Amino acid sequence: MIGDPLPSEQLEGQLLPKYLALPIFASDPLSSVAYAPQELLMILTLGGLSFLAFAPWVAAVVVLLLVVVTLSYRQLVKAYPSGGGDYEVASKNLGEKAGLVVASALLVDYVMTVVVSVASGVDNIISALPELAPLRVELAVFFVILLGAVNLRGVRESSKAFAVPTYVFIGSVFAMVLVGLTRVALGDPPVAESAGYEVESHSLAQAALILLLLRSFASGCSALTGVEAIANGVPAFRRPKIKNAQATLALMGGIAIALFVGLTALALISGVHYSEDPCDLIGWAECATEPQRSLIAQVASSIFGNNSLLFFIVQAATAAVLLLAANTAFNGFPLLGSVLARDSYAPKSLSTRGDRLIYSNGVLLLALAACLILVVYRANLTVLIQLYVIGVFVSFTLGQSGMVKHWITMLRAGASPRGPILRSLSINGFGALLTFVVLLVVTVTKFTLGAWLVFVMMPVLFTLMLGVNRYYRDVATEIAVDPETTFGSQGDHAVVLVGKMQKPVLKALDYAIAARHESLEAIHVSIDDDETLKLKRDWIAQNIAVPLRIVQSPYRDLSWPLIQYIKGRREEHGSEVVTVYTPIYIVGHWWESLLHNHKARRIRQKLMMVHGVTIALVPWLLDSSELIYGRRSRPLPGQERRGEPVRPRPVPRKPLTPAGRPTGREKH
Amino acid sequence: MIGDPLPSEQLEGQLLPKYLALPIFASDPLSSVAYAPQELLMILTLGGLSFLAFAPWVAAVVVLLLVVVTLSYRQLVKAYPSGGGDYEVASKNLGEKAGLVVASALLVDYVMTVVVSVASGVDNIISALPELAPLRVELAVFFVILLGAVNLRGVRESSKAFAVPTYVFIGSVFAMVLVGLTRVALGDPPVAESAGYEVESHSLAQAALILLLLRSFASGCSALTGVEAIANGVPAFRRPKIKNAQATLALMGGIAIALFVGLTALALISGVHYSEDPCDLIGWAECATEPQRSLIAQVASSIFGNNSLLFFIVQAATAAVLLLAANTAFNGFPLLGSVLARDSYAPKSLSTRGDRLIYSNGVLLLALAACLILVVYRANLTVLIQLYVIGVFVSFTLGQSGMVKHWITMLRAGASPRGPILRSLSINGFGALLTFVVLLVVTVTKFTLGAWLVFVMMPVLFTLMLGVNRYYRDVATEIAVDPETTFGSQGDHAVVLVGKMQKPVLKALDYAIAARHESLEAIHVSIDDDETLKLKRDWIAQNIAVPLRIVQSPYRDLSWPLIQYIKGRREEHGSEVVTVYTPIYIVGHWWESLLHNHKARRIRQKLMMVHGVTIALVPWLLDSSELIYGRRSRPLPGQERRGEPVRPRPVPRKPLTPAGRPTGREKH
Repeated sequence: MIGDPLPSEQLEGQLLPKYLALPIFASDPLSSVAYAPQELLMILTLGGLSFLAFAPWVAAVVVLLLVVVTLSYRQLVKAYPSGGGDYEVASKNLGEKAGLVVASALLVDYVMTVVVSVASGVDNIISALPELAPLRVELAVFFVILLGAVNLRGVRESSKAFAVPTYVFIGSVFAMVLVGLTRVALGDPPVAESAGYEVESHSLAQAALILLLLRSFASGCSALTGVEAIANGVPAFRRPKIKNAQATLALMGGIAIALFVGLTALALISGVHYSEDPCDLIGWAECATEPQRSLIAQVASSIFGNNSLLFFIVQAATAAVLLLAANTAFNGFPLLGSVLARDSYAPKSLSTRGDRLIYSNGVLLLALAACLILVVYRANLTVLIQLYVIGVFVSFTLGQSGMVKHWITMLRAGASPRGPILRSLSINGFGALLTFVVLLVVTVTKFTLGAWLVFVMMPVLFTLMLGVNRYYRDVATEIAVDPETTFGSQGDHAVVLVGKMQKPVLKALDYAIAARHESLEAIHVSIDDDETLKLKRDWIAQNIAVPLRIVQSPYRDLSWPLIQYIKGRREEHGSEVVTVYTPIYIVGHWWESLLHNHKARRIRQKLMMVHGVTIALVPWLLDSSELIYGRRSRPLPGQERRGEPVRPRPVPRKPLTPAGRPTGREKH
Repeated sequence: MIGDPLPSEQLEGQLLPKYLALPIFASDPLSSVAYAPQELLMILTLGGLSFLAFAPWVAAVVVLLLVVVTLSYRQLVKAYPSGGGDYEVASKNLGEKAGLVVASALLVDYVMTVVVSVASGVDNIISALPELAPLRVELAVFFVILLGAVNLRGVRESSKAFAVPTYVFIGSVFAMVLVGLTRVALGDPPVAESAGYEVESHSLAQAALILLLLRSFASGCSALTGVEAIANGVPAFRRPKIKNAQATLALMGGIAIALFVGLTALALISGVHYSEDPCDLIGWAECATEPQRSLIAQVASSIFGNNSLLFFIVQAATAAVLLLAANTAFNGFPLLGSVLARDSYAPKSLSTRGDRLIYSNGVLLLALAACLILVVYRANLTVLIQLYVIGVFVSFTLGQSGMVKHWITMLRAGASPRGPILRSLSINGFGALLTFVVLLVVTVTKFTLGAWLVFVMMPVLFTLMLGVNRYYRDVATEIAVDPETTFGSQGDHAVVLVGKMQKPVLKALDYAIAARHESLEAIHVSIDDDETLKLKRDWIAQNIAVPLRIVQSPYRDLSWPLIQYIKGRREEHGSEVVTVYTPIYIVGHWWESLLHNHKARRIRQKLMMVHGVTIALVPWLLDSSELIYGRRSRPLPGQERRGEPVRPRPVPRKPLTPAGRPTGREKH
């Protein structure tokens, strides 16, 4: 009835082979190559073109960072294959508070991933189709809404369709780099459209120079975003999970570095001059009117020729992979939410699989936040990058420190062989140190440029999560059982609420009779005398054995006289349990629920306040309610990354409906 | 327990004496005096100052209209004292469709009442405090939100506080008119600040001239808005209801006319020149920078002196009464909603008294729509007036036509004495004719100026309401009883769902035992083996007689195995009724409900799909749940106009809590 259970047995079949895992998890880290070099060079350009000489060194440090972080995460994957990622590591090793800091950092980070990826994606679309430039913000918001809608509908992320763009992106960028380098080798280096533009060079003080280098490095660090994705997704891998995850991680790191280096190199060779304010570019007349094309676009057009087919392929693939990266956040957000809920830092409902309603709220929240930021910051990539990197490095640092603690405790526990453990310890130690330094750099260089907002958001989230946790704890103590309990409720009376004479009421009556209560009566609260009279007639016409009691209502209130009556009964009969039967409508469309059950629900709510009352809901399936099956069968955001199976649930045909009404079988 | 019933007996005490009914119902119609003359004169000024000569004649027609409409409504009040107003009259006499047209017209009208009143109110505030001019839109939105919030909280409209501004307004404007006229008599006529400004006069074609007159008349008709309010509020009057309502109506009409005539006259005498585009006023240098002051403000300053105390009093009273007028819409909207719901053209929930949630939605909807329109039209009164009057006259016309039909049918039925009926007939007939003509005029003159929007909204609402009605009708046929029913469900099995060992579960168990089902068992769906083991131990520790059955769940899904088990049972035992006991948490704060019951609710939802299942809810009151009482005691929007009592419900103390848990009494 709720769908074929078989597929769920072969969980293995649901899990991701490497060739699918790579594109799914790597779209985020790889896509960052699309903006990291550009931002790195742009900041340097602020000091004048001469500063581009520093670019290779800054890039080198970023690469080093990538290597270290990738290695560190291979350790993390090995130690925590459960997929909790930095949050789990931090909270297990460094305690609750640290874990929550990571959690809030990640939540902010997911929003920023969407924002930055979409903004950059739009940039690259505009670079290919400049006439879209005026619609920058509209486009960005549109894509966010699109992603939200897709994820609300439920999307099978593992479908091959998601793999294609990533591979095309990797392939085309690699091809671009190779062609570019060969042309250099053949003595025909590509020349970017902006190569001719000058930038007046400022003579900076020593301090300013260093700050500039640090800033450009900080922006370059955006290349590291998303590296952690795989660590959160281990459960989704095929066996041997750890090995496969580590292999994919290494592969991903390698590709990321190659692309980053290649693009940066070609940008320098072809002389791409990208400036924060286009009109700083001396010699470019249309700076005010025309959009400044993204670094990747300039490189592509310099190598493949402007508006050549290959150029458009590169741009399309870039935009696509960036949108995929944004999509990963739409998967990660609810996933993290469910983990937080499991640890009761977020509403429990987030951890209940299939509660679409709540998952949806997560998606909606994310989409809303992203849209808001995009509109406020006019989808300006350079500004948004400022908010981005911090969250990432907060979780990096705490995650790595957690690992250090983890290895030390293992050593303390006298685990052996000590060799590999010490190696892992040193790796993570170095990683923690490095990422912490970077975090400081990033914070210092970006705080005044907008990053302060992150430092407002994180504490807020932190406090909220802590509050939820404390609330659950208090309730838990409130409902904890006493050392011993004796059951003493005596007496058993049943009441069937009757409004009009309708099938659902009759079904409720039928079930109440079947339950053989000590005493049973039907109660009608009389508001309109004519209706009451009609009911009485129907009652006789249907010759129902159960006595019908009419309770007068002084003024059109249904629950009040009912409550009085029940309380009166309990005063006579002592601690009697009164079961109140009410029919409840099961509907198909969300909007139908606006049209049903409200009156009944309100009566129930009030009755539940009465001492000793139990409410018995007798469901009545309206024909439309069959529909609610179709919905259930879709996967939930983040479900697959958690390695959970997606059960297709076929819409059942007619056999459903009888459940609703007293059918022949019911009757005899 | 749900509050002292006594006050509800003395309904009479709750009803409105005339001196309170007047301000409550008349704030809407009287406040329109604040903008009607201004708009009337402004349109004429478009043709040049010479056109102001036509003003008295146009005003005269408006007054005539006011007289006729007031008289017509006195008939309506007599014939339909139930308070349905135009909607009831139209649907009873002209049929469903006509009724729905009126309903949709009124709904649009309520929104426009808020918008126009607030916009005009802000205008008058700005006229007194010009430095606020840049904040026009912000102020308007703020006031709408304020009104929404106040009504969400629930406000006792009948409180004297609401009467004061209206009386101050009437008093101060009358004083103004008298002082003004005496000064004229004493040969020292007041001179408005804008008296000196010229407007170049266009030489208009005959047609254009007539169109202009019609337009100015159409705008002047905004003086009639709100006259119908009393007809909808008859039930709220003290006995003799009809007499009192009619008296109030007549009084209101008289005052409205007096104020309208007085203001228009003084505006002409003092030479107020008000222009659609301030910079059409030749001789006013600051037209671009300074705000053009409202007509009432100009008259007040010309008579009492600018920025004199009395001037500020007039402005304050005007703004206040306009906001009150907006507030009436916040009462009328949900009231009409409940009437529509009663006739099942809107969700039934709207007719359930006290369902704050839904009432709130009505208020929220109204506030949202108003804010939207205010922002889109930049709170520009002149533009908004274009959308306003149409809805009013649609309902006027249909209401009056309905009355005509009503009287005719009475005559046909041979009712006597025929004299008064014929008089009423002729009055309403004339009213219907006149309002219809005005409706045509208004439509023709305003359609292109923005009124088309109204002609888009109304059909949409119309269709929605019709759709809801048809839906309810279909469901009704779906659940209609067959000529005879036999109750045949056999067998009675009870299941108590056990997650962890907690008090709520024990209470559910206690009640299940008391209900003496044929067979009873506790079921735990095992997801985590450790938890299951712990539960088993607790079960023994608490030595509970009821057998505990562990159902294994293949993968973390709670409902699926449960459903399988129940279905299996029913296959063995035939058409057995299975009662599933689950505890349900009753909470106090809205946000708590985000943190509870979701998992249980989802299980219930799925179980309700299973053939023969009844869900038994055993309520558990969390300590916070006591709070939900305080809320209940507030009146609902529109409640008092419907003449319904407001029951104060004292917050009950401790005695509540025992209901939640198995107390000593429960136990033995």
